[in-house]
Amino acid sequence: MILSALLTSVGINFGLCFLLFTLYSILRKQPGNITVYAPRLVVEGKSQERRHFNLERLLPTAGWLRKAWEPSEEELLSTVGLDAVVFMRIFIFSLRVFAFAGIIGILILLPINYCGNQLSDDSDFTDKSLDSFSISNVNDGSNRLWIHYFAAYVFTGIVCYLLYYEYAYISSKRIDYFYSSKPEPHQFTILVSDIPVPLESTCSETVERFFMEYHSSTYLSHSVVRRSRKLERLIDDAEKLYKRLTQLKKRNETPQRFRCDGLLGLFRRNVDVQARCEKELEDLEDNVRTEQSALARKEDPAAFVSFKSRFGAAIPLHIQEGVNPTEWVTEQAPEPHDVYWPLFSASFMKRWISKQMVVVACAALTILFFVPVAITQGLTNLDQLEIWFPFLKSVLRLAVVSQVITGYLPSLILQLFLSFVPPIMVMLSSMQGHISLSQIHKSACTKMLWFTIWNIFFANALSGSVLYNVNIFLEPKKIPRILAEAVPSQASFFIAYVVTSGWTNMSSELFQLNRLMSNCISRTFTGGADDEFEAPSIPYHSEIPRIAFFCLLGVTYFFLAPLILPFILVYFCLGYIIFRNQLLNVYVRKYETGGKFWPIVQDSTIFSLVLMHIIAIGIFGLKKRPLIAILTVPLPVLTLLFSEHCRKRFLPIF
Amino acid sequence: MILSALLTSVGINFGLCFLLFTLYSILRKQPGNITVYAPRLVVEGKSQERRHFNLERLLPTAGWLRKAWEPSEEELLSTVGLDAVVFMRIFIFSLRVFAFAGIIGILILLPINYCGNQLSDDSDFTDKSLDSFSISNVNDGSNRLWIHYFAAYVFTGIVCYLLYYEYAYISSKRIDYFYSSKPEPHQFTILVSDIPVPLESTCSETVERFFMEYHSSTYLSHSVVRRSRKLERLIDDAEKLYKRLTQLKKRNETPQRFRCDGLLGLFRRNVDVQARCEKELEDLEDNVRTEQSALARKEDPAAFVSFKSRFGAAIPLHIQEGVNPTEWVTEQAPEPHDVYWPLFSASFMKRWISKQMVVVACAALTILFFVPVAITQGLTNLDQLEIWFPFLKSVLRLAVVSQVITGYLPSLILQLFLSFVPPIMVMLSSMQGHISLSQIHKSACTKMLWFTIWNIFFANALSGSVLYNVNIFLEPKKIPRILAEAVPSQASFFIAYVVTSGWTNMSSELFQLNRLMSNCISRTFTGGADDEFEAPSIPYHSEIPRIAFFCLLGVTYFFLAPLILPFILVYFCLGYIIFRNQLLNVYVRKYETGGKFWPIVQDSTIFSLVLMHIIAIGIFGLKKRPLIAILTVPLPVLTLLFSEHCRKRFLPIF
Repeated sequence: MILSALLTSVGINFGLCFLLFTLYSILRKQPGNITVYAPRLVVEGKSQERRHFNLERLLPTAGWLRKAWEPSEEELLSTVGLDAVVFMRIFIFSLRVFAFAGIIGILILLPINYCGNQLSDDSDFTDKSLDSFSISNVNDGSNRLWIHYFAAYVFTGIVCYLLYYEYAYISSKRIDYFYSSKPEPHQFTILVSDIPVPLESTCSETVERFFMEYHSSTYLSHSVVRRSRKLERLIDDAEKLYKRLTQLKKRNETPQRFRCDGLLGLFRRNVDVQARCEKELEDLEDNVRTEQSALARKEDPAAFVSFKSRFGAAIPLHIQEGVNPTEWVTEQAPEPHDVYWPLFSASFMKRWISKQMVVVACAALTILFFVPVAITQGLTNLDQLEIWFPFLKSVLRLAVVSQVITGYLPSLILQLFLSFVPPIMVMLSSMQGHISLSQIHKSACTKMLWFTIWNIFFANALSGSVLYNVNIFLEPKKIPRILAEAVPSQASFFIAYVVTSGWTNMSSELFQLNRLMSNCISRTFTGGADDEFEAPSIPYHSEIPRIAFFCLLGVTYFFLAPLILPFILVYFCLGYIIFRNQLLNVYVRKYETGGKFWPIVQDSTIFSLVLMHIIAIGIFGLKKRPLIAILTVPLPVLTLLFSEHCRKRFLPIF
Repeated sequence: MILSALLTSVGINFGLCFLLFTLYSILRKQPGNITVYAPRLVVEGKSQERRHFNLERLLPTAGWLRKAWEPSEEELLSTVGLDAVVFMRIFIFSLRVFAFAGIIGILILLPINYCGNQLSDDSDFTDKSLDSFSISNVNDGSNRLWIHYFAAYVFTGIVCYLLYYEYAYISSKRIDYFYSSKPEPHQFTILVSDIPVPLESTCSETVERFFMEYHSSTYLSHSVVRRSRKLERLIDDAEKLYKRLTQLKKRNETPQRFRCDGLLGLFRRNVDVQARCEKELEDLEDNVRTEQSALARKEDPAAFVSFKSRFGAAIPLHIQEGVNPTEWVTEQAPEPHDVYWPLFSASFMKRWISKQMVVVACAALTILFFVPVAITQGLTNLDQLEIWFPFLKSVLRLAVVSQVITGYLPSLILQLFLSFVPPIMVMLSSMQGHISLSQIHKSACTKMLWFTIWNIFFANALSGSVLYNVNIFLEPKKIPRILAEAVPSQASFFIAYVVTSGWTNMSSELFQLNRLMSNCISRTFTGGADDEFEAPSIPYHSEIPRIAFFCLLGVTYFFLAPLILPFILVYFCLGYIIFRNQLLNVYVRKYETGGKFWPIVQDSTIFSLVLMHIIAIGIFGLKKRPLIAILTVPLPVLTLLFSEHCRKRFLPIF
């Protein structure tokens, strides 16, 4: 990719972002869009609907920026909860890291790279390949590589310091959160599963006996989990029927009924329907009663056990209850609306097997997904396209078209494929035996992160070069060399990726096209005022891996191709302000984990650092400076020791 | 190695064992040797010393075999404790495994191997190379390899079944042990370390305040750890001085004193010495008092905290006490005589760093130890010896000498080097921050196991073939092939190793040459009746890895060279009866971990199985049956899943 193509891409995307921002600032002021752009305020009843028309409604303004910027962290914490604050801390952390990296990268490393002449690219400045700004351009054996070496050490030190600071900060916030939270029922409750119920006894009796014997002073009560799906369905049916009946009655009770009844026989039918509904409802009522009485026998071997104090609940949570560790398994009870019911009846063994199977399925998905990625990758290559679609040859030769294709299309297609993955990962995680939505999302978050790193970073880096192969990872000795050959050559792809995918994603996050369109459609067809309006919750499991991935790109390419840093910095600036706005206006809190997502970010940053070190070792070796390569080896070791220390120091708090 | 050389070696070692057994049966009946062969009985006061001479004392008898065989497991448990019973279970488990393996190996696999003609060894039966009995002799691409394939599956199944059975059995014994044990002070006590002592307060006050606040209902008392080494030294000195003084006084008070005093002035000196001693003792007394009063200020930030009930002690043990997980770190208090004091003052950070350094040191020792092993290995090669020491040529050409050298010497030298390793490993483990001797031994046991596997199995297997290199393990893809090439060719070395090292070790364990000699010497020079007689305790950290290693040899060579199995079976038979005898007569219990050593054996057996599978995959590939190789792949996966399941099911009990 040449510099002018990059500038085109930046121009297009900058324009697009600006357009979307402008449209957003207008559309958000339209009263009809309030459920799209401020559903959180609607749900909380804080929105002031302005029905009267005024001209200001049609003018783009930047007031939302100010509103999103203003709240302090304490205000944010009290409004949107700790998880959201931790989510925003990811941006603050990344901004700090990349502000620093940008200064070193652009002011020191970029000029050094550009001054080299390894690639002997004699074209004009605008036609220069982006590789001229990357480490590939530094001459082999050059002493300037020492500067890269020191930059790597200084950068790692700074990132580790910031990671430690952030972990400590979030830990203290988490502890404050627990100290300041009001007593909630779920804090006094644990979930006990795999209860060994003797043949002649019921689950409820067994639980009662057990906890009365071993925790008599703190035990309060319990409720056994029951398989009530049939009952729920019946009640659902009954509710629907009742609603319909009410509607019918309302219509029939209007004066019209008396006026029209018998005249045309038209409303006679209504009365019949009403009678039939009433009959059906009575039947349903009987069924519900039968089912309710049958429910007592449909016990699962699991129960929520409540204690008199939080400390009392913590004791059975931390001490193994049964002699057999696969029985009387205890877990902290999730918040009531966070519980995920389907897997409560599964035994320990069944959950364990399904967990293993999910791991296999997830690995298969992650590894086999590269097929569409490889196709996408083919599209960046114009020559390939011309061979595949010869009839497009003349179109592809147009400068604009070729620049759009190389700069924009590949990441868009990739994006499309990627949008199917988070739901699949959530589905897989839900089969792992987690008992709450938040745990499922956390697990899906980790899966998505590995998926993203493997399928976007490695698949692109390695298939772009000579050999793409899972096999590489079976020969650890060759990894630094292969990565050092492959990764820098993909710098231009990833710069384009940040600009297209990153920036567009952020502005479309703000614009919420899907929800805007579905709102339009529903307003057009149902005439608005939809009862079943539900505010969305923020999908951490797809957002955090994406942000962490841009962080990984920035860290990895920090000294390979510092040109990427300004674009990543812009990405995080956009993200910071947009997500503040979205958290304040759009998303509602579905659960509160108290910042449990942070350790995932910590781990992914450590992974990024170590990946950078491995590539650095490979690069220094390739550039014929083995001494520098050897002197880089302590860096990943120190980083991993730091990570291990953080695990000891902070992880037990989470 | 040819069959006749093996038979020579077996003959020599069998003779040696028989000799040692005979000598033992005579020597153990000599009253002077009672502290060597029955120190346990002496300590427990159960030994009946027979001072009168009779002829039977000079005749070899097998009565000790009967005595060692007779006690049932319950009797053993009550006499020698659970750890010893678990130690004996290792033998029972191995005997079961290898009895079964022997049947399959000798009756099915050995004839199949022998019938092959891959090696085209046309020599006489006694001159046949041992390789003729190994899988190397099976023809490439032969269908008979399917039998090896099924044997591997059946064997793995049986071993896993036995492992599960044994784990379940030992778990139940462990639980019974806890249920039946009398209340011991250490069960009510936890060790709290890293206590954050405020500047204006003492450690004792801090602990008191903390536990009164958070565990007021169960907290009983505490005692802060103090640095009393100087005081101990003073008291030691004082005791010695007092002893000397008493001796002097005794001598001076005899009538001789009055008789000789003034006569020659000879005993005048004695009185002077006595006076000086008394003076010194008084000084010491003052010092001790000063030191005792100073002790209050020499507090370590650690304390033993006792609770009113075992359950009360379990609560702070399992629940994180401080907000900062590196403060108020709790551990189960060890048995009083099991405590290891030196590292009590170390902070969390210091312990963590020293742990990392120990890991590095241990890895370095394990990997660099191969230098002497390689030299040893060179000795098995006669041609090499002749080149090194040309003057020995004529001697080395003698059949007996060459057979002794190839059959016996190498493992003996290896043995010598290896005897230095366990103390080093204990020393390294003691620097890791463990607070009890039993933990140190357990940790040293794991280290020794890896050390043994790496330095005896891998170093021999790999340096014997073309390339010995740590590098191999950096290329996981090549491991099966390299192992499959190297391991079978070392079969004869390991058969000889079992016969020489294994059998000899066992009989010298019975014979206790070192202690016998030191007993002889001390009796000759001090005239017997040594006050400071101390019964030895069984060194689990060096014995268990050795036994586990023979188990690994048997499992790995089970289908490669089934000829090894009878010798291993003999080893375990010897071990069973000899260690029963030793446990009953020689070793005293120093600590009781309640069977915590078993998981190490479980893990090492699983490792052995997986190693066997990897070699099998390599062998089937080498023998040009890729289908069988691929069909073997599920076997290690299933084994690891089984291991994982055992970890979930049983490990929390340990």
